[in-house]
Amino acid sequence: MTNDVRTFVADHSAELLTDLDAWLRIPGISAQPEYHPEVARSAEWFAEACRRTGFPVVEIWPTAGLPAVYAEWPSDDPDAPTVLVYGHHDVQPVDPLELWHTKPFEPTVDGPVLRARGASDDKGQLLFHLLGVRAHLAATGAANPAVTLKFLIEGEEESGSPNFEALLAERRDRLDCDVMVITDTGMLAEDTPSAVTGMRGMVPAMVSFHGPDLDLHSGVFGGAVPNPAEALTRLVAALHDADGRVQVPGFYDDVLDLTDTERELLARVPFDEAAFLANAKSRALTGEAGYTTLERLGARPTAEVNGLGGGYQGTGSKTIVPSDAFVKLSFRLVANQRPAAIRAGVEAFVAEHTPPGIQSTVHWEGEGVEACLVPIDTPAYQALSRAICTAFDAELILPTREGGSGPEAGLQKALQAPMVFLGVGLPDDQIHAPNEKVTLSMLYKGAEAAAHLWREFAELGRAGFKN
Amino acid sequence: MTNDVRTFVADHSAELLTDLDAWLRIPGISAQPEYHPEVARSAEWFAEACRRTGFPVVEIWPTAGLPAVYAEWPSDDPDAPTVLVYGHHDVQPVDPLELWHTKPFEPTVDGPVLRARGASDDKGQLLFHLLGVRAHLAATGAANPAVTLKFLIEGEEESGSPNFEALLAERRDRLDCDVMVITDTGMLAEDTPSAVTGMRGMVPAMVSFHGPDLDLHSGVFGGAVPNPAEALTRLVAALHDADGRVQVPGFYDDVLDLTDTERELLARVPFDEAAFLANAKSRALTGEAGYTTLERLGARPTAEVNGLGGGYQGTGSKTIVPSDAFVKLSFRLVANQRPAAIRAGVEAFVAEHTPPGIQSTVHWEGEGVEACLVPIDTPAYQALSRAICTAFDAELILPTREGGSGPEAGLQKALQAPMVFLGVGLPDDQIHAPNEKVTLSMLYKGAEAAAHLWREFAELGRAGFKN
Repeated sequence: MTNDVRTFVADHSAELLTDLDAWLRIPGISAQPEYHPEVARSAEWFAEACRRTGFPVVEIWPTAGLPAVYAEWPSDDPDAPTVLVYGHHDVQPVDPLELWHTKPFEPTVDGPVLRARGASDDKGQLLFHLLGVRAHLAATGAANPAVTLKFLIEGEEESGSPNFEALLAERRDRLDCDVMVITDTGMLAEDTPSAVTGMRGMVPAMVSFHGPDLDLHSGVFGGAVPNPAEALTRLVAALHDADGRVQVPGFYDDVLDLTDTERELLARVPFDEAAFLANAKSRALTGEAGYTTLERLGARPTAEVNGLGGGYQGTGSKTIVPSDAFVKLSFRLVANQRPAAIRAGVEAFVAEHTPPGIQSTVHWEGEGVEACLVPIDTPAYQALSRAICTAFDAELILPTREGGSGPEAGLQKALQAPMVFLGVGLPDDQIHAPNEKVTLSMLYKGAEAAAHLWREFAELGRAGFKN
Repeated sequence: MTNDVRTFVADHSAELLTDLDAWLRIPGISAQPEYHPEVARSAEWFAEACRRTGFPVVEIWPTAGLPAVYAEWPSDDPDAPTVLVYGHHDVQPVDPLELWHTKPFEPTVDGPVLRARGASDDKGQLLFHLLGVRAHLAATGAANPAVTLKFLIEGEEESGSPNFEALLAERRDRLDCDVMVITDTGMLAEDTPSAVTGMRGMVPAMVSFHGPDLDLHSGVFGGAVPNPAEALTRLVAALHDADGRVQVPGFYDDVLDLTDTERELLARVPFDEAAFLANAKSRALTGEAGYTTLERLGARPTAEVNGLGGGYQGTGSKTIVPSDAFVKLSFRLVANQRPAAIRAGVEAFVAEHTPPGIQSTVHWEGEGVEACLVPIDTPAYQALSRAICTAFDAELILPTREGGSGPEAGLQKALQAPMVFLGVGLPDDQIHAPNEKVTLSMLYKGAEAAAHLWREFAELGRAGFKN
């Protein structure tokens, strides 16, 4: 059966490529309103691709924002488990455009990779699923899959999924499932199959400092009244201690620490520092003392400055004490940390670091998102592990923790089913950056893994997920 | 004679007002190229006003930028001292326009004050000089002033006097003088006549931090690579210690401390903290420990953040590790501090606070400007003191230190003559800010003081300035 799947995928890989080329030409950037008609076209394109693949139920689900695609393919077996696959069809903006070596919406194959915005995040990965279903059917010889498949493909993930929670609530009766498969993540390396087992949550905040009610002449008033830009730098500088530990009160109180087993498995990941720095286009590693880089990235909470501004930013000099300054922060959370507790801690931290004469405001972008954790001893994870090992000819997969955040926490909360992550992006895919690419062999292996996963899940049966 | 001067000024104050109204309607903003024709009109207007006043020599002096006005009125006495009066006819930009209660270029009299851009800085003050010359002549009954007057009125002061040094060099043979009178400053209060005796120098700098070569996804890389925005806040936060002392190496090495006499005189200034804060539209006093607010403002060097920026500054959140961040700083210098030493100290400070993985750049806006100091025991200052006391019916004037910086250091260097400051702005004039105003009675007293000053200087004689 393994060979059947592999042969089918190899024989049909050109079709995946053709589809990918067509879909990637649609610039479905959800964050930029001028591209919203393209996001709608992108949804239509994927819906049609699902119909071509054989899904008997394919629907466009409108939202208050941009449309999602829903596709359903029931199994013949009424006792087969139901699997919900989550991904997204929208893409990130492309600026700064001048840093792209090829046009972002003109897919270009360059040896083993294909470059375009969305190639890895997330269109390529959704298309391996469509090939995977076909390979699964070819291998079983059946007309319908061994599990009931539900694909829920969002159109606003790259702009923060503002309407996803409402969509889940509205369509809740259609979304019952026994297990969820998230396909919007990556693996450690081509020869190191892995699966995400944790996804950090996030609390984004903007802190504003207001000093004088107008910009003051720094010669006339400087040195005698509080400068909000300077005060803000002291607040931000105090966010971490010398060991890189976040100083927000109570920040680590609820953190679920890595187990010894998890640390051992993570330590087996062949981490190439030089390659990581090259991907990051950075010159040094840093972070919380006492943890490896991979632990810092996936299993430790962080506080990061995403942007700051205040006062005069034009050419030359303007000698003012500025009236206002702000910083945009994001806090990445790990399992068990509660966004509400973090928000309260940040407000206490800001109050504590607001000097006399400065008025501070903390603005929250929503309530924040909890982290997700996939325990590695669950049947769903074990089935995923077997499927990936078969596709990659590997003996084990390494569990990783992903640093990013997505709508997975909302899915888990709404659907209350176990979750696994099947994603084949690579660390150098440049997602969210210029020159995004996908490695084509990873897509083919992803298709194989999906085909095996449906078989594994069918063998578990519905009862197998309840423990 | 006192009464003659006062009576003449009172009888002709309406003419000053009429002139001020006409001149202030010309929006001569030197920093904005679209207003440059207006700066030229402003120069022509003032040249014509000098001719009307009786100056026999009036010239427009072009520069590589905007024109200056030069006017000369020789004394009949070949042994009379020559006085060079410095001021500027250009004005600051007016944005944010929406904060103005009246239109900036439609002068509006409101009881004791007149509001318009340039009313105090510096057009009102130059017009008190023209009335002062006339009062001086009326009081002496002579056809020509008792001193040889040279007015050098710049057109680019508000944009940093980029061509002033070249102008001084080009016209050096016309500018010989025994004493200089700077008229671009203020007094402590209507009932507290004072004169500036020090003007801080300035060194403006921009420090840039470069981290990763592109903005990174903070979920994927955050917490493991250096964040330039965060690193920059640590540099800025380290600029001052807990006592508000600047931590740049060697920053205070050359500072000429206030004498005990100067501290005693400064302590006699009736400083109204509530009024100062109201003028500053600020809520607290701060600054270097061990010094009063007035000492901090005038006699102590400072480091100030004028602006900062980096990463994402738009609406909502964008979870990146930014590639770049910058801060614009200005260092105010006091007497004896050398800009070159400060620049070297700042470069050492930046190098010391650049963490691994961050590339720092320091950009200098020119070489910087030294501070000016007027020793209070000089004949020129004593003559100024007598003239102001007569005009204000006061027994003494308080020497102050001005926090700002202008082209005075360049004048002193080029002309090598003693300098005094005769200016009648008030702390609440809102110069450089919306709703600039001038208090009209201060202009009338300024005219009286100028009339007396020419007599005092004549009595000193040329030899009186050389000591």
